[in-house]
Amino acid sequence: MLSADHAARRDALRSLIRAQGWDAMLVTDLLNVRYLTGFSGSNASLLVSASDSAAAEDRTLICTDGRYVTQVAAQVPDLLAVIDRAGPPRLLADTDARRVGFESHVVSVDDHARWSDGGDVELVRARRPVEQLRTVKDETEVALLREACGVADRALGLMMERGSLRPGRTEKEVGLELDHLMLELGADGISFETIVAAGANSAVPHHRPDATVLERGDLLKLDFGAEVGGYHSDMTRTVVLGAAQDWQRELYDLVARSQAAGRAALRPGAEVRAVDGAARAVIDEAGYGELFLHGLGHGVGLEIHEAPGIGATGTGTLLAGAAVTVEPGVYFSGRGGVRIEDTLIVREDEPELLTLTSKEFTVL
Amino acid sequence: MLSADHAARRDALRSLIRAQGWDAMLVTDLLNVRYLTGFSGSNASLLVSASDSAAAEDRTLICTDGRYVTQVAAQVPDLLAVIDRAGPPRLLADTDARRVGFESHVVSVDDHARWSDGGDVELVRARRPVEQLRTVKDETEVALLREACGVADRALGLMMERGSLRPGRTEKEVGLELDHLMLELGADGISFETIVAAGANSAVPHHRPDATVLERGDLLKLDFGAEVGGYHSDMTRTVVLGAAQDWQRELYDLVARSQAAGRAALRPGAEVRAVDGAARAVIDEAGYGELFLHGLGHGVGLEIHEAPGIGATGTGTLLAGAAVTVEPGVYFSGRGGVRIEDTLIVREDEPELLTLTSKEFTVL
Repeated sequence: MLSADHAARRDALRSLIRAQGWDAMLVTDLLNVRYLTGFSGSNASLLVSASDSAAAEDRTLICTDGRYVTQVAAQVPDLLAVIDRAGPPRLLADTDARRVGFESHVVSVDDHARWSDGGDVELVRARRPVEQLRTVKDETEVALLREACGVADRALGLMMERGSLRPGRTEKEVGLELDHLMLELGADGISFETIVAAGANSAVPHHRPDATVLERGDLLKLDFGAEVGGYHSDMTRTVVLGAAQDWQRELYDLVARSQAAGRAALRPGAEVRAVDGAARAVIDEAGYGELFLHGLGHGVGLEIHEAPGIGATGTGTLLAGAAVTVEPGVYFSGRGGVRIEDTLIVREDEPELLTLTSKEFTVL
Repeated sequence: MLSADHAARRDALRSLIRAQGWDAMLVTDLLNVRYLTGFSGSNASLLVSASDSAAAEDRTLICTDGRYVTQVAAQVPDLLAVIDRAGPPRLLADTDARRVGFESHVVSVDDHARWSDGGDVELVRARRPVEQLRTVKDETEVALLREACGVADRALGLMMERGSLRPGRTEKEVGLELDHLMLELGADGISFETIVAAGANSAVPHHRPDATVLERGDLLKLDFGAEVGGYHSDMTRTVVLGAAQDWQRELYDLVARSQAAGRAALRPGAEVRAVDGAARAVIDEAGYGELFLHGLGHGVGLEIHEAPGIGATGTGTLLAGAAVTVEPGVYFSGRGGVRIEDTLIVREDEPELLTLTSKEFTVL
């Protein structure tokens, strides 16, 4: 990743900091530090100076401990690194900033009390400015999301080619193979615990793979993702094993139409509630609104679930460059369910689809 | 797991709560909720009433959201469950307790402000009472740790039998196979990102497996663990590939003697600093004290790193029933390093060794 991306993100944050009238902002959420600097170690804090002069970067400090001396120099060549296990108190002692924003949604009551004790810095609650910036992905981030989605696509493709999704295997075996393939294909990790749900289990939205044996005639739901360079993909596909019954085809068709309506509603300026509503209306009209048990989707990036949430009670509008999932589902308890999910980028014209595996009704 | 274990843990917490003069304690750390109830969902909070009467359990409430209605009933049959996405504010509104301890080391400044707003409950900072209880493992916990360590032992044994640790393979391939084996052998997850470090990489304490090819004559360091039922194992073994040089044998012998000294020092009442010192003295005497770059060990349980820390600057003493690692290492930068690590239970007589893979000097 180019450090120019990180410098641009810090500049964007500086505008938000100045708008609040602060001298600096203390960033302690590790993912936010990674977003702003590229540093991926397990201990870091960052003090971003609000100055808009050329000196702003010189006054911006990253702090980590002795384990990461080499790594911080390699990953963050453009900032001064302070090596001190203490972190935030050290940065606050070193700065001449007086009004400093802090991440009150993640800093604990104990840490806040400790950092406020005796210093002459005024800590001011910040309202998630870095998370706000993170909702709009730059092209470097989109490239990583595209790669993460590509790994998941290729892994599922290989599973299908090999005949790995077949009656007689257990959900757990299928999940392990899928995870292993994603790692072999270049994933740095899996995005979350892979869901493999066969037959009646497919009606449980977040079923954990178990010893259930896949059987001919089952709906088989796979919800999984790959992590690449810190960015997560998220995709669900539902297929039928062996031979499909009419109710399965009809259910699939319904969810597919809902999902297409949700994708079509993704555009800059759209209210998240309206996007959810567009997909939900299709299912409501079919009389199954009560069986669509969750929101339509969520933002995805350095976290598997991040802003914006796309649900019936969500607020706010979509921005161009947002990375989101669209994942309606209908679940017949005790019988089976279908969910279809893509990861997409909101664009001025059409949304960009990152998960490319076919959504045609498929009998394996 | 028997719910009697969880009830006993809640009773132990009640003694600590009463000693503080509180009416109840609000537990919001998810691992602490799991420890006290067995609930493993991703959203939960718990209000533990301080009463020592039979009514204490009736007044103890667990709160989660609609996704977990079935799961909370199955996992926590002995407590009243409140289904409300709001969590802590709902529990605080429902209780007649007035002085309530809260986990100020994990509760954010924002959440604390929100929960304190307008209610007539006084929230009091608690000093990690649940973490304090968690340092001493009951036999149910030890059984899970034993199983987790057993899975790791069996996985490494299979790797050796199959000849998987051989020149020509990459660190990443070896790590993937080891992870996959642990999951196949019954692990619910891996404890942390597996370390596979060959040749000069073995001198990096926390090297991330990469495309480095294993070569004849390399030191090969493997640091890995399995998670079973929420409990983590942690083990490091270092072997030589093909043929060993004298310096490798000598280095191994030194670290093995240090590790044995550390294990021998584990007993109830021992100062953690003294345990670290017993192992460190062996390496200091050999003149390599500067190359032992980290503390001797750490507690392990529901977290891979938890109290007590065992290091040169640690404070406090070991309790019978503590689960800890002992893991000295000596690292020759650019050449290679050796670390040997076990997970053990502190017992009145000898510590109980849970990681049973041989620590004999091994050339594969």
